[in-house]
Amino acid sequence: MSTLLLKTLREEPADAEVPSHRLLVRAGFVRRAAPGGYTWLPLGKLVLDRVTAVVQEEMFAAGGQEVSFPALLPREPYETSGRWTEYGDDIFTLKDRRGADHLLAPTHEEMVTLLVQEMTVSYRDFPLILFQLQTKFRDEARPRGGLLRGREFLMKDAYSFDLTDAGLAEAYERMRAAYQRIFNRLGLEHTVVAATSGAMGGSASEEFLAAAEVGEDTYVGCTACDYAANTEAVTTPAPTVRQPAAPAMAVHDTPDTPTIASLVDLANERALGGRTDWTAADTLKNVVVTVQHPGREPELLAIGLPGDRDVDLKRLNAVLAPATATLFDDFASRPDLVKGYIGPQGIKIRYLADPRVAIGTAWLTGANQPGKHATDVVAGRDFTPDGVIEAAEVRPGDPCPACDDGRLTMRRGIEIGHIFQLGRRYTDAFKVDVLGADGKPVRPTMGCYGIGLSRAVAAIAEQHHDDRGLVWPAAIAPADVHIVAAGKDGQVEAALMLGATLSRAGLRVLVDDRPNVSAGVKFTDAELIGIPRSVVVGRRLSEGYVEVRDRRSQERQEVPVADVAGVITAEAG
Amino acid sequence: MSTLLLKTLREEPADAEVPSHRLLVRAGFVRRAAPGGYTWLPLGKLVLDRVTAVVQEEMFAAGGQEVSFPALLPREPYETSGRWTEYGDDIFTLKDRRGADHLLAPTHEEMVTLLVQEMTVSYRDFPLILFQLQTKFRDEARPRGGLLRGREFLMKDAYSFDLTDAGLAEAYERMRAAYQRIFNRLGLEHTVVAATSGAMGGSASEEFLAAAEVGEDTYVGCTACDYAANTEAVTTPAPTVRQPAAPAMAVHDTPDTPTIASLVDLANERALGGRTDWTAADTLKNVVVTVQHPGREPELLAIGLPGDRDVDLKRLNAVLAPATATLFDDFASRPDLVKGYIGPQGIKIRYLADPRVAIGTAWLTGANQPGKHATDVVAGRDFTPDGVIEAAEVRPGDPCPACDDGRLTMRRGIEIGHIFQLGRRYTDAFKVDVLGADGKPVRPTMGCYGIGLSRAVAAIAEQHHDDRGLVWPAAIAPADVHIVAAGKDGQVEAALMLGATLSRAGLRVLVDDRPNVSAGVKFTDAELIGIPRSVVVGRRLSEGYVEVRDRRSQERQEVPVADVAGVITAEAG
Repeated sequence: MSTLLLKTLREEPADAEVPSHRLLVRAGFVRRAAPGGYTWLPLGKLVLDRVTAVVQEEMFAAGGQEVSFPALLPREPYETSGRWTEYGDDIFTLKDRRGADHLLAPTHEEMVTLLVQEMTVSYRDFPLILFQLQTKFRDEARPRGGLLRGREFLMKDAYSFDLTDAGLAEAYERMRAAYQRIFNRLGLEHTVVAATSGAMGGSASEEFLAAAEVGEDTYVGCTACDYAANTEAVTTPAPTVRQPAAPAMAVHDTPDTPTIASLVDLANERALGGRTDWTAADTLKNVVVTVQHPGREPELLAIGLPGDRDVDLKRLNAVLAPATATLFDDFASRPDLVKGYIGPQGIKIRYLADPRVAIGTAWLTGANQPGKHATDVVAGRDFTPDGVIEAAEVRPGDPCPACDDGRLTMRRGIEIGHIFQLGRRYTDAFKVDVLGADGKPVRPTMGCYGIGLSRAVAAIAEQHHDDRGLVWPAAIAPADVHIVAAGKDGQVEAALMLGATLSRAGLRVLVDDRPNVSAGVKFTDAELIGIPRSVVVGRRLSEGYVEVRDRRSQERQEVPVADVAGVITAEAG
Repeated sequence: MSTLLLKTLREEPADAEVPSHRLLVRAGFVRRAAPGGYTWLPLGKLVLDRVTAVVQEEMFAAGGQEVSFPALLPREPYETSGRWTEYGDDIFTLKDRRGADHLLAPTHEEMVTLLVQEMTVSYRDFPLILFQLQTKFRDEARPRGGLLRGREFLMKDAYSFDLTDAGLAEAYERMRAAYQRIFNRLGLEHTVVAATSGAMGGSASEEFLAAAEVGEDTYVGCTACDYAANTEAVTTPAPTVRQPAAPAMAVHDTPDTPTIASLVDLANERALGGRTDWTAADTLKNVVVTVQHPGREPELLAIGLPGDRDVDLKRLNAVLAPATATLFDDFASRPDLVKGYIGPQGIKIRYLADPRVAIGTAWLTGANQPGKHATDVVAGRDFTPDGVIEAAEVRPGDPCPACDDGRLTMRRGIEIGHIFQLGRRYTDAFKVDVLGADGKPVRPTMGCYGIGLSRAVAAIAEQHHDDRGLVWPAAIAPADVHIVAAGKDGQVEAALMLGATLSRAGLRVLVDDRPNVSAGVKFTDAELIGIPRSVVVGRRLSEGYVEVRDRRSQERQEVPVADVAGVITAEAG
């Protein structure tokens, strides 16, 4: 440590919002170098390398072959797949000296598809799993949380190619199992949840979420079964409609009721439709949004949902991806859309309804005239939605879509892995065919599988710290032992000698041999840095004893110097 | 190999100009993915990783600490150092979604200087050597030679910080020695030559050149001493002037002599100055170039040199860097510069002379009038150059600048490493001061040290191949043994079993178990791929024998199956 590039900080970095960011900066593992860009310092680089090595090892064990694509690529293949436009501002693009368009690739589906097209001939060349460990770049609108969401980060991306859907399912399961082994080895408590595919395309997809308060993702579990999903992917069970045949729709004067709350109050006050038990859940809220498809004109969309729920824009955008939606507010330009009084009956824009707005359900909703609402507006009779959409907020206690009795619970997590059954989106785009066993051409089907390596380091730090600092799991700690020379009377020399002995025993050792630094500061730094065990070479050295401390349990034991290697390797084993 | 992503090619790739490029593509190590961008395939990635591991190991052994900076960086620090402008079109720049200027960093002097400024306090924190292994991007005007000059490549860059010039010299020597160990371990025959510093700035600098016909760099050696230099850095010994005092300058009619050859002919014909032994070396050629300093107006520069030599634009540009020079040809715009008849006497633009144009030397040169030349134009009497410039071509047989008797020899090489004593250019730019031992501020001095890792793979392939394919040095081969199942009668199973045995013995094994591939094709592929030893499992397997082949020497020996591991590990040791 007397020569290590390290300066621990006592103060919280001003820009750090989350514990992992604060601690990784304070303990000298990373340092901000650019907006959303971090420099890995020597201790941090050791941790990142260990995480990377675990991932590489498990990818090889799962039959993966390592390749490495360029990060800077010409526009054409991404134009062919449509992603140049779909990703829009989210990717970095540039022109080279000849004016040719390039991008810093977000992932490499296009390139790996082209490679497989060039390098394979027949069914004998399949199945294939290719992976790479690569720095990725994304022009994040809001980089946050240090390593959690950066503009430059290290990623493991893998791609599987199979000739049958069953083969894809098998590759997917193999990668899923590898991911669970990886995250277990990294000490990450995680949940696998159903996910949406987003701009990646494809069908089935699951996310690996590390439980963490600071996570950007919200996911649900079930009180009764093992259902788990990202809130973006939660499906809503359609109600069984047992309502009696509703009377004919009736329009009522409902002045000054532009909100659901004011409408419910007035409806009960005036006993609309003869009822005084109206609740927000009996009303149909109609929300208008502007949908922007990449490279197309914006279009309006109305979403109908029970009045006790809001539209969750994150869920809506997940459904619409690669298009994006924003709330519409230019009602002056559309007199047919009467703000606060919109109803689905006769609406002139595309109308999608929440699954709860099932055929046969009757609603209190807008009458498309200022100050008027209608009762007994029945789905399938008075209006027919253009389709169903999952865009309503999910709440704890909502019914589970996978079992009869369960209720949803909600937690927050960090997305550390994402696996997709892509299917043939990319092999179709590039018209990849190989010779099948029967002599006819076959089009391969793909999976893709990503792990954020730098983000995983942050997730580990989120799950493994206490109020004194980081507490690294042994498998990825920057060293196995932290030796602290507590005093000056030959203790520095003894610490260095002990370090050499432990190194020879195969342990990775950090020795705090700093002169002019007090024992107290050294202890504080050791706890901040978080190496699993430290050995304090202090006053009792003269009697032949040192103290071995466990970072996590805070246990301390006096050990004869000669036994230290044995004690630590025994514990490590 | 039945599952490996590999398709060897019999034909030469159309775009491959050099042996390493041809062989690395044909043998399935790399594949072109973009202009100047290559994908590393599984075999190639193994080699690149081994090269990288050797470099990393030696950097640690030399006291280096590994860090990792972002590649995508904001403009400001590079503006402060001046490199944003100096590099011009040679770097990739882009704007992020907020319109802020960024670059893909060519190297990280700015960032490492800022990091050291933030992370150090006093003399106790020095010396420091930091290094990283990183993908770099450069907008090469002419990517060529496959991995030799790409737009995206892997590089090891290191930076040393010391408080004294002696400290810098010591760090420089330590890195120099580490580089020699690295290149020896990689099996690269190389020469260390004096070099110019180019846009990097700084004083002393040396290049490590791997001897190769296809190299872009020309370097000189000496027949008598150990002088070695890149031609760009060769200095010209100034002649000892022993000419008698020359008569006064005289102007002569020399119609139709716009070239040196026509001038020499006419001078001898007409016995100008009473001589008939004129040669081109007696004439003074004056070449006008346009010099473009980054961010400034272009300026004209005249270069005077003996008429038997041309200006070497590569040498000139090395001297002028970061400015660049092109030949001036718009003589119509400058009537004072009489094309073909320019002389240095009274010239109105900046005039720099070759060292051979020493004070006291007399020349036959232009008289600045159409059709007229002057004799006895004496340097220091009739004209005084604004300075000396090294821009004339270097030729084999030129006198050595380092000894009295030696003559220069010339070879071509690939630049695989470059080390610089930078000095305080960057610590001055960012005003980095630390507390010295005497309590006063000290400004650190820097060195920087680069190795092109992907280029090193190409250089190794250039030096280690024959007409059958690649011949990898054992230390970086993609495997230790290549087992070929030559037939079908249980030989594939035996090959796989032998492979498992050798793996357990610690060897890295590639087994050619491909069905439906003939023994001949397998042998050809084994020679193309170039693993140091192969084991042929063939007909004599039934008698308990296999054949061990040495790729380099082509020696073959029959070995009992049970002895293979022993034979190969003995040879490998």
